[in-house]
Amino acid sequence: MAKMYLTRREVFSASHRLWNQELSDEQNFELYDKCANPNGHGHNFILEITVAGNVKGESGFAVDFKKLKHLVRTEIIEKVDHKHLNYDVDFLKGTIPTAENIVRAFWHVLESKNSEAKLYSIRLHETENNMVEYRGEE
Amino acid sequence: MAKMYLTRREVFSASHRLWNQELSDEQNFELYDKCANPNGHGHNFILEITVAGNVKGESGFAVDFKKLKHLVRTEIIEKVDHKHLNYDVDFLKGTIPTAENIVRAFWHVLESKNSEAKLYSIRLHETENNMVEYRGEE
Amino acid sequence: MAKMYLTRREVFSASHRLWNQELSDEQNFELYDKCANPNGHGHNFILEITVAGNVKGESGFAVDFKKLKHLVRTEIIEKVDHKHLNYDVDFLKGTIPTAENIVRAFWHVLESKNSEAKLYSIRLHETENNMVEYRGEE
Amino acid sequence: MAKMYLTRREVFSASHRLWNQELSDEQNFELYDKCANPNGHGHNFILEITVAGNVKGESGFAVDFKKLKHLVRTEIIEKVDHKHLNYDVDFLKGTIPTAENIVRAFWHVLESKNSEAKLYSIRLHETENNMVEYRGEE
Amino acid sequence: MAKMYLTRREVFSASHRLWNQELSDEQNFELYDKCANPNGHGHNFILEITVAGNVKGESGFAVDFKKLKHLVRTEIIEKVDHKHLNYDVDFLKGTIPTAENIVRAFWHVLESKNSEAKLYSIRLHETENNMVEYRGEE
Amino acid sequence: MAKMYLTRREVFSASHRLWNQELSDEQNFELYDKCANPNGHGHNFILEITVAGNVKGESGFAVDFKKLKHLVRTEIIEKVDHKHLNYDVDFLKGTIPTAENIVRAFWHVLESKNSEAKLYSIRLHETENNMVEYRGEE
Repeated sequence: MAKMYLTRREVFSASHRLWNQELSDEQNFELYDKCANPNGHGHNFILEITVAGNVKGESGFAVDFKKLKHLVRTEIIEKVDHKHLNYDVDFLKGTIPTAENIVRAFWHVLESKNSEAKLYSIRLHETENNMVEYRGEE
Repeated sequence: MAKMYLTRREVFSASHRLWNQELSDEQNFELYDKCANPNGHGHNFILEITVAGNVKGESGFAVDFKKLKHLVRTEIIEKVDHKHLNYDVDFLKGTIPTAENIVRAFWHVLESKNSEAKLYSIRLHETENNMVEYRGEE
Repeated sequence: MAKMYLTRREVFSASHRLWNQELSDEQNFELYDKCANPNGHGHNFILEITVAGNVKGESGFAVDFKKLKHLVRTEIIEKVDHKHLNYDVDFLKGTIPTAENIVRAFWHVLESKNSEAKLYSIRLHETENNMVEYRGEE
Repeated sequence: MAKMYLTRREVFSASHRLWNQELSDEQNFELYDKCANPNGHGHNFILEITVAGNVKGESGFAVDFKKLKHLVRTEIIEKVDHKHLNYDVDFLKGTIPTAENIVRAFWHVLESKNSEAKLYSIRLHETENNMVEYRGEE
Repeated sequence: MAKMYLTRREVFSASHRLWNQELSDEQNFELYDKCANPNGHGHNFILEITVAGNVKGESGFAVDFKKLKHLVRTEIIEKVDHKHLNYDVDFLKGTIPTAENIVRAFWHVLESKNSEAKLYSIRLHETENNMVEYRGEE
Repeated sequence: MAKMYLTRREVFSASHRLWNQELSDEQNFELYDKCANPNGHGHNFILEITVAGNVKGESGFAVDFKKLKHLVRTEIIEKVDHKHLNYDVDFLKGTIPTAENIVRAFWHVLESKNSEAKLYSIRLHETENNMVEYRGEE
């Protein structure tokens, strides 16, 4: 019953704007700087979803990567790729789409859908230099 | 007088929307598909600027990378990073911001400003899998 | 009429064995060393297809990346991905599948199918350190 | 006595076929899809071996990377590089060479040979998008 | 109060020489091999700093990446980039600059300066194949 | 007689200092800035050697990568890896080791030794963002 951690990597291209409607313009630009640009900006977000599970003798799989890929693509990628995260994504409505809030929203989407294995970690690379990871800890 | 090709790489995060106002909505979605999404989408665009010049004996430089970096950052990156390419960039106004049109616009900006060496190639990676190069050929 | 070079990158996972049936076993192992291993070995081959074409005013495209991707996937990737290049691929039959012979075979397949733009270069990375490029020069 | 985690990265090129002889052909193709291709397929597998140990004052090393590299190359890489994992590797005989089973087999090989530091994690990237990690948890 | 792990990546170019003055020349070359070369050698060191903190509702940030970047650049990068680690860096004086000793020294520098979030991990890639991580465990 | 371009990639870790002894200290620091640091600094230099040749029917090789690798390793890598380029390398003596001068020196070394194929291009990546290419043009 060896425990394995499987990571599926996907990329999506989206835009977003960081803006808190409860703050003044000045406070928003102070807080979010160029990320507050009114027309938004975008990234090729790199997403890494890690699930944990035990290897099954019959298949030699802990999780079937084909199923994990299908899950991530249908539940996440199809809904965020080539979209504006502030306006076009149901499960992000009312959220300031910082990397932190995006990974937490992804966690809630996947946690309820993923039955074969336990969700372990979600990592989101916004740029080559900035990455956020969430492990379900509250 | 050895001829060298020097490439400076920069990354910028921007959003854009592909849309030709002279075409119908149907034609635009047929042509641009998900890139026509009304609220736009974005990328971490990777830009590679190549200039060509001869090595100078005194410095051992063909071009000073510090100056090339400064040129690319002030003329290009500061104007497009964390911006919406359809609305926020003077030299792209009135242009459909496809990768092809972006690199040609960058060429025109740099060609007039770059005096130390000859502009040789501009490459723009929109995603990990799609890249456009322009070498000034008309 | 700006001329652009567009590159589509794809990855495929395949196995191959380097072996010339007209040579002796000794000659084959001398020539191909560990690449002559009877049961074969494999790679994640990284393929870069570059086509050249002029930008069209209406679309701002030189070539539509969606069409280029479709072409490369249907004509090449679907036929070689998760395959053994010595046995499973019609257009490689009778060829020693060196990187050189593979890119030339890919060239012939794409040259006859690609109508929108001119095939300019095919690059195949066999490993992180070894890459072969063909530009149609005979 | 600072505790450090040292990771050595190696790449090997191998082929494999996923097939469980106790299942029917239909079940195998249902389970393994294109990975069940009779002639096999291959990858440039990227391997990351992490060991943990305390820094020694005299050397400033927790583990000598030269020794770790030598261990991984002689015990693993020389035995799997340019090989077919189903047929050519003693310690994989009788195993369905899924990424999960490969990392567990590597763990058993290294655990018995590694004396200088404690084996902490083995990660195997089968493609750019699929990775499996094992930490010795049963 | 979701807990997030934020990683900032930076690169610095430096040289170093591994040499323990309390050992003989022979012992040093035996221990450090080519890393003991008298004139030193160098790397593009890739540094990954991970901090952990809870997301704040007002900003949607656990940590402000702008501040983390500023901290890492002013406290670390400006002091080690384009420097010789044996001679030019105050906080490394008297230390054999192995990757292990470098990350521990960086930890001590950052631990005392970082107030917004808890330092979680420092990773230093010396080459593409060798990486050391420290998590503050003594 | 298909013409192929084969590229071998190697990495070496070295240090250097940019300094022209015929200039004043002030002029040197003005010209080379932080690259003039007296104790030097270093890089993981990434080297790409491209040779061109025709495919031979018997082998399916234009050039044997094993021989190209051997050539580059014995003539270049063994002489520059873990060295200080200003002091430790015979064929760089008396040269200011800018990327431009390094690639030209490498060209002269390889041109006289490479008999199987024609040297086409040498590319040297000093950092992730700065690269110099030389094609033998004087």
